[in-house]
Amino acid sequence: METAQGAGVTLTSICGGEGTCSKCKVIVKEGGDALTPVTGIERNCFSEAEIGDGYRLACEARIGGLAEVTVEIPLESRSASYRLQAEGSETPVALDPSVTAVHFEAVPPGPGVATAVDESVRDALKKAGISIDLVDSRCLEAIAPDLRGLGWRGEAIVYDRSRLMALVKDGTPLLGMAFDLGTTKLAAYLLDLRTGKVLATTSQVNPNVLYGDDVMSRLSYIADHPEGFERLSASLRGAVSQMIGDACRQCGEERSHVREMVFVGNTLMHHLAMGLEPSSLGSSPYAPITRETCRVEARSLGLVAGAGCMVYSLPNVAGFVGADCVADALAAGFDRKEGTALMVDIGTNTELILLKDGHLWTASTASGPAFEGAHIKHGMRAASGAVEHVALDESLRVRYQTIDGAPASGICGSGTIDIVAELVHHGMMDESGRMRTSQVNSLIVEGADCLEAVIVPPGESASRRSITFTQKDTRELQKAKAAVAAGIAILMERASTVLEEISELVVAGAFGTYVDMQNAMAIGMLPHLPLNRVRQVGNSAGTGARMCLLSREAKVRADLIARKMEYVELAGSAVFQAAYLRSLGFPPHRGPSP
Amino acid sequence: METAQGAGVTLTSICGGEGTCSKCKVIVKEGGDALTPVTGIERNCFSEAEIGDGYRLACEARIGGLAEVTVEIPLESRSASYRLQAEGSETPVALDPSVTAVHFEAVPPGPGVATAVDESVRDALKKAGISIDLVDSRCLEAIAPDLRGLGWRGEAIVYDRSRLMALVKDGTPLLGMAFDLGTTKLAAYLLDLRTGKVLATTSQVNPNVLYGDDVMSRLSYIADHPEGFERLSASLRGAVSQMIGDACRQCGEERSHVREMVFVGNTLMHHLAMGLEPSSLGSSPYAPITRETCRVEARSLGLVAGAGCMVYSLPNVAGFVGADCVADALAAGFDRKEGTALMVDIGTNTELILLKDGHLWTASTASGPAFEGAHIKHGMRAASGAVEHVALDESLRVRYQTIDGAPASGICGSGTIDIVAELVHHGMMDESGRMRTSQVNSLIVEGADCLEAVIVPPGESASRRSITFTQKDTRELQKAKAAVAAGIAILMERASTVLEEISELVVAGAFGTYVDMQNAMAIGMLPHLPLNRVRQVGNSAGTGARMCLLSREAKVRADLIARKMEYVELAGSAVFQAAYLRSLGFPPHRGPSP
Repeated sequence: METAQGAGVTLTSICGGEGTCSKCKVIVKEGGDALTPVTGIERNCFSEAEIGDGYRLACEARIGGLAEVTVEIPLESRSASYRLQAEGSETPVALDPSVTAVHFEAVPPGPGVATAVDESVRDALKKAGISIDLVDSRCLEAIAPDLRGLGWRGEAIVYDRSRLMALVKDGTPLLGMAFDLGTTKLAAYLLDLRTGKVLATTSQVNPNVLYGDDVMSRLSYIADHPEGFERLSASLRGAVSQMIGDACRQCGEERSHVREMVFVGNTLMHHLAMGLEPSSLGSSPYAPITRETCRVEARSLGLVAGAGCMVYSLPNVAGFVGADCVADALAAGFDRKEGTALMVDIGTNTELILLKDGHLWTASTASGPAFEGAHIKHGMRAASGAVEHVALDESLRVRYQTIDGAPASGICGSGTIDIVAELVHHGMMDESGRMRTSQVNSLIVEGADCLEAVIVPPGESASRRSITFTQKDTRELQKAKAAVAAGIAILMERASTVLEEISELVVAGAFGTYVDMQNAMAIGMLPHLPLNRVRQVGNSAGTGARMCLLSREAKVRADLIARKMEYVELAGSAVFQAAYLRSLGFPPHRGPSP
Repeated sequence: METAQGAGVTLTSICGGEGTCSKCKVIVKEGGDALTPVTGIERNCFSEAEIGDGYRLACEARIGGLAEVTVEIPLESRSASYRLQAEGSETPVALDPSVTAVHFEAVPPGPGVATAVDESVRDALKKAGISIDLVDSRCLEAIAPDLRGLGWRGEAIVYDRSRLMALVKDGTPLLGMAFDLGTTKLAAYLLDLRTGKVLATTSQVNPNVLYGDDVMSRLSYIADHPEGFERLSASLRGAVSQMIGDACRQCGEERSHVREMVFVGNTLMHHLAMGLEPSSLGSSPYAPITRETCRVEARSLGLVAGAGCMVYSLPNVAGFVGADCVADALAAGFDRKEGTALMVDIGTNTELILLKDGHLWTASTASGPAFEGAHIKHGMRAASGAVEHVALDESLRVRYQTIDGAPASGICGSGTIDIVAELVHHGMMDESGRMRTSQVNSLIVEGADCLEAVIVPPGESASRRSITFTQKDTRELQKAKAAVAAGIAILMERASTVLEEISELVVAGAFGTYVDMQNAMAIGMLPHLPLNRVRQVGNSAGTGARMCLLSREAKVRADLIARKMEYVELAGSAVFQAAYLRSLGFPPHRGPSP
């Protein structure tokens, strides 16, 4: 742990290195012999199999002198300041982007050579195996002065191996951006299309939150305001434009070198970004305007980027299952996987995908923004100072960890899951979610409106006021987790599958990445599965978008996935309502999984 | 002649019905028995074969009492007020336009039906045999409100059987426009794409004449002025936009119903209309930016028309042989004709096409604007009041005819050809083009700078000043006709053909339609061929554009023609220079062809 801190890598730790919170897990990859032996604390924390795999607690394992040890830090052990970087580092595809740069050496038109200016480039590219079908009109407009400026040689920026977008100097940066347009959060990745490397990441709150927390409230706003659609669409695209600029500034690149952007998002975000009036999503049968892949010029959406820059939007599946869900399934490889697996992308809308024997069922459940810290008294998004992990010791003393170790200023989603799980575990909350006071200590106190648990005392918080989690907050969380649990139940029923068949649970979403899995299972939000079947994949919608940005094959796969997905309607389903009501409470505590 | 005048059809007539000018030829199709017999005047005028074909002079033939007689009025006998109508009435293709309206009855999205709004239309169109590949982004933006407004039924406007442009009420006008963008004159045709009928025609002077009379002087202007390209391009497109409005106003249609526009023009006009910087046309090797067919959205060119309206520009052949030449060859059917034929499209640039055994040679010659009335002292374009035909009688008295019979205000191209031919014929001009004065009469007088022939005396002209044709004007005309004659000579040499082999001479261009063929041959401008091998086809570039507007097959043919054409460079060719110098003079008069 000290070595990690010295290297600027902040590990999750609630107990401050006392060996009681079990959060600072690492996996030793090489040089494990140089470490002190596995301690009793670690044996209590890990299964034999996990110890065999190299699992250690960073606070317990020490390096015996000067030695090289390689450890992997699992996502769940990484702290917030490390988040975006971790999420943005890998894109599991072979590099084959739609946009490529092809070196050419053209011979100017003349007798016996090309007759027209564009033919000189077409002929040169033909030698490189590229047959141009279409020259973008703006490219054609500039082709003569461009060629003169370049001395008739340089690189042709080509889309899909057939469409000439621009002519540039050799080695000009060739950039692409992938966007995950979430209901609450927008995330963007700037990639080098020559290497596939992520050059920068950026995120911001979706400006549409001004018009409603969730999809339905924004659709109501649009229905009630004549200018509503234009406002939401323009502010969303404005944010996208800002993020292009932000990402480029981070690494000293120019937005004029961005040649392709890939969008994923739920169906409403898709429609607003592409300028499609989404009112049909607001009432039954919740029909999207289109489910097709959209490919339009960035400038037709008012986005300023490189000449010819294209926007590629993954297909939607239904009114409430959008391109983000397709990107999730793509990133998880659900189109190439055998057996049965479940994917949960937790957010304000939670997307669910169930794979069984090559068939894909999908649903979307309105879990609401509680996981993002909204509608929670001291809730906040997962930013510096947010209480992200909480544990109670046997004497009910609260131990907590904030993002970046900054003074606490609120509680983010993963913190609220921990609080509820710990309160139930320690008997301070009953199965219906009612808080209990205790004579023994002052954890649960009478707040202004209702009972509340004091998580951070006034003296420790940034605002010098106590940070609490209330009875009402519990209700919000119950509704959110019940929506997820009921959705999973319906999907499993539809696929006629049972828990035992599920060989993998893929948990996605920024929230899903940092949440304590055992606690999420403990409160009945996620099905109770052995942890070694659980994979936390971070922002996999963003990963799917990056995959499509880097790989034409991934684009084809995404189309096939969308066509294959069977949409299961939850809204208005009586079966779902019943499952939802069953899921509101908390199951009896079952202890850690083997 | 009286019957025609009574019906509002103005026949060409210089002698005023005295039987001396032979201009009012008609061809009797039915009911010839009701006419008075062929007169001696007519026997002097026509060959036996022509009389057998039904040729009569309208001033000589009278109808004996009340009877039905059907006559065809050949183009050369029609007077100006009739021109545009005549040119615009026929488009020799089977109706199969790129843009079609397909009736649909959609089922709104719902369980078991379409999932997305666009799918309801796609599904309905599939039943009509139309498989939509792409929905235009603007169409997609409006699809939901459009469908609601239409009650989910109406007509889909579809481009190329696969691209959805718009949804409209059943029977909404479906319009297209064809443009011939000439160096001096712009002509446009508004067509009903459901019937193929021409609804309106309009023409105006190309506003680019402000920047130079011909292609090279406009290119110089562009080279010398940083804003030059933008000025010429914008003013040309402005004129196109005006013409859309003009044509629609004429017949009470709306420009929002125009769904396709086809452009033909020389290469410079093409580049300016499509927004391509044309500097490369200004110097050797005179390379166009592109020779490809261009297909862009009208709005990307700043043209306001119907939603999704496309602009289709026929391909260019070379820097000085443009899409208009391709359209000419298409209209003349040179891609389907056997043997040897020559086409001459006379204008400020004269396009030449020689067909021999399926091979096409083409050249362009800068005949200059003299044929359009420019650089001629009293020259004017072929508008009301222009002297369009002139004859001298044996006593050298001038007889002339003006367009519309209006008081003379100047001389148009066909008038100047007649004047020179008649002066040579009557010995008032020698073979080198020098005018001669005569004691006998006052036809040739000493003008301000040089000798001049008085065509219209002061008392008869609109301005009350005499209208003359000067020695200098003769030199202009000599240069123009020599350029045409030399171009034809070079092309025939290249194709190794001789006059006898040419089975058809197709003469195109507004000027070429109204010029007296015998006189054009007499002055050595066109090769001396029997008149029955000459076909005057009017604005055939415009006809070719209309063909492409109405027929997808015509578009394919145009592409093949452009690819097949072998361009013969005249500029800078020593052989051409020699032929040009040889062609400046006038051959001895040979009398009418048999």
